Amino acid sequence: MNLKHSFGARIGVLGGGQLGKMLTLAGANWHLPISILDQSLSFPAMPYAFEAVIGDFNNYEDVYKFGHLNKILTIEIEHVNIDALFQLEAEGVVVHPRPNALAIIKDKGLQKQFYQQYNLPSSSYQLFDAGIDILQAIENKTLQFPFVQKTRTAGYDGKGVKIIRTKEDELFDQASVVEPLIEIEKELAVIVARNERGEVVVYPAVEMVFHPTANLVEMLACPARIDTTTAKKAEEIAKSVIKQYDICGLLAVEFFLSTAGELLINEVAPRPHNSGHHTIESCYTSQFEQHLRAILNLPLGNTELKSPAVMINLLGEQGHFGKTHYQGLFEVLQMSGVHLHLYGKSFTSPYRKMGHATIVADSIEKAIKKAKQVQAMLKVVSQ
Amino acid sequence: MNLKHSFGARIGVLGGGQLGKMLTLAGANWHLPISILDQSLSFPAMPYAFEAVIGDFNNYEDVYKFGHLNKILTIEIEHVNIDALFQLEAEGVVVHPRPNALAIIKDKGLQKQFYQQYNLPSSSYQLFDAGIDILQAIENKTLQFPFVQKTRTAGYDGKGVKIIRTKEDELFDQASVVEPLIEIEKELAVIVARNERGEVVVYPAVEMVFHPTANLVEMLACPARIDTTTAKKAEEIAKSVIKQYDICGLLAVEFFLSTAGELLINEVAPRPHNSGHHTIESCYTSQFEQHLRAILNLPLGNTELKSPAVMINLLGEQGHFGKTHYQGLFEVLQMSGVHLHLYGKSFTSPYRKMGHATIVADSIEKAIKKAKQVQAMLKVVSQ
Repeated sequence: MNLKHSFGARIGVLGGGQLGKMLTLAGANWHLPISILDQSLSFPAMPYAFEAVIGDFNNYEDVYKFGHLNKILTIEIEHVNIDALFQLEAEGVVVHPRPNALAIIKDKGLQKQFYQQYNLPSSSYQLFDAGIDILQAIENKTLQFPFVQKTRTAGYDGKGVKIIRTKEDELFDQASVVEPLIEIEKELAVIVARNERGEVVVYPAVEMVFHPTANLVEMLACPARIDTTTAKKAEEIAKSVIKQYDICGLLAVEFFLSTAGELLINEVAPRPHNSGHHTIESCYTSQFEQHLRAILNLPLGNTELKSPAVMINLLGEQGHFGKTHYQGLFEVLQMSGVHLHLYGKSFTSPYRKMGHATIVADSIEKAIKKAKQVQAMLKVVSQ
Repeated sequence: MNLKHSFGARIGVLGGGQLGKMLTLAGANWHLPISILDQSLSFPAMPYAFEAVIGDFNNYEDVYKFGHLNKILTIEIEHVNIDALFQLEAEGVVVHPRPNALAIIKDKGLQKQFYQQYNLPSSSYQLFDAGIDILQAIENKTLQFPFVQKTRTAGYDGKGVKIIRTKEDELFDQASVVEPLIEIEKELAVIVARNERGEVVVYPAVEMVFHPTANLVEMLACPARIDTTTAKKAEEIAKSVIKQYDICGLLAVEFFLSTAGELLINEVAPRPHNSGHHTIESCYTSQFEQHLRAILNLPLGNTELKSPAVMINLLGEQGHFGKTHYQGLFEVLQMSGVHLHLYGKSFTSPYRKMGHATIVADSIEKAIKKAKQVQAMLKVVSQ
């Protein structure tokens, strides 16, 4: 076997948010030299980077210059300047995930075409350039209510997605993907990892529970409460997806499990993902360590679950804008099996992701029960 | 209950070695503002500190100035300038562990007197000012061979300790403690934690296995392979010790278990300890998070063991001085349940602590077996 790997090489990360922070902390265990590019030193990852570089990951020059400081370049957010990544790759910088995969993933329209092309299960779709074209299709009866409209680019954390039920609902006037509204039994996510050697590992499927109004994942449970055939199938699909994209690093594959029992790829994220936070405490190898192993072409780590886990996002409370204060912290720290992660964002605003808590327990039911207690106790408010 | 705590307050740590690094990484999960004082930016903890301050923790002025940058001051090494700590405490800086406990612990002679005073079990001892006084006692037959000589101050990691069997063995010509050589069944360590509220928690006893020549802990196994009565007794003694010292934070209590079945306190360390590294992966609350909880007067965390664990120190290979290289890394990363921690020391020298690995397994026997494989595979050499 080819044992070539890049352990110890300089790693650059585009983005200094919480994902960048946790990636950097995973690298800290091996004392990996990780640099971060983002716009402010106050961002979550910055205090933990070997080098914190100020710049805009959407700016060609900033990304290009930062890239050349490193041997390997990776991301914690997919909305970055891809032209610079293509150029850096051409000039010998290792970029994971590869820019051509990123170019597809960044555009939900191209993503849908990709799944169709490779026979990967995803719902049917139509592409539109603007709101007027969608109105035209409704008029022509080639598009029926209800449907889901997703902007092709720049959607993130549930933004850029609308359910359209009647002519009165407002459309995005942007290039978008339109899909039939599927009756969903569950939303699932499966994280896979792959290295340059072609090794692929997959984490157990997680079940997402969405916040009723904010369209953000509120709780996730692992293992997902689905039958083993479905779990196995989701894992196999996720493995195919990462191979077809030719991605090294992590890929989070989000699925709809329809009421008809069909597994459909919703979208993917080629980076550490909210649905994998629980792995820090519940798996032998956290998603963050796994991403580093994958991009450095090291052996991939064991993805087995050590214990059932539930992850809750700690979102800024509604009506609170201002200096962050954690209410109920003392009470939560009295609970056993609750692992608190605070991202260190100085200012809170409604639904902003301020931290998360992972609850490990003997059973998923116990973990969910305790997670609800934590949610009721711990509030991120303004001072 | 008084819920007063200092979550979010500025914490200063004297010492930027691996213990300071792992303490800082534990604080990173809660985004605690931790500053470090040490002599070089290349030391293990420095890249992860909110503020890395260059200075000498043995220098009064350096410690005094650094102390006033923080609300709470703690240590990762006990050989610091205590006069400055007394002054800072008098001026309102919270210092944990308290300087008066540190002053006793720093001096192995005072430690012995302390255990005697508080009826805590420790071996008999004699104090001497210099080598000549020991020779005199041998002459007078008030001291018999074999015995153990320990310098009263500045001993660390097995340094400053000698077994003297005959007149030919060279003595330290320093103020020292002399103890009879005890026939040891096992060496154990128990870590306890205490907060300002007086809450005390104790970790399961660990069993230390020493390197045959370097007098450094080579492997530790948790739970220790001792009967539950002995384990319980060691835990109870450790709790008494921390209360008598009036320490907030961690205290590692090292014991000799004599062949006669007696538990004797060997020495203590009022800080995170080598014998608690396994807690990062094997316990609900790591020793590092626990130390932070304790010094911030937060509720103490669950100390239960999630799974048996073995910790091995990765020591610099004999005969290797120079730029650090990890040999066998790829092979070790292929193993499941092996958690690697590299301290990032650029230069290796024989027996230097360069990192550690924690091996978790279903049973302590399996973990020991795997630990031996890791030891055989992974070598820290010079390039």
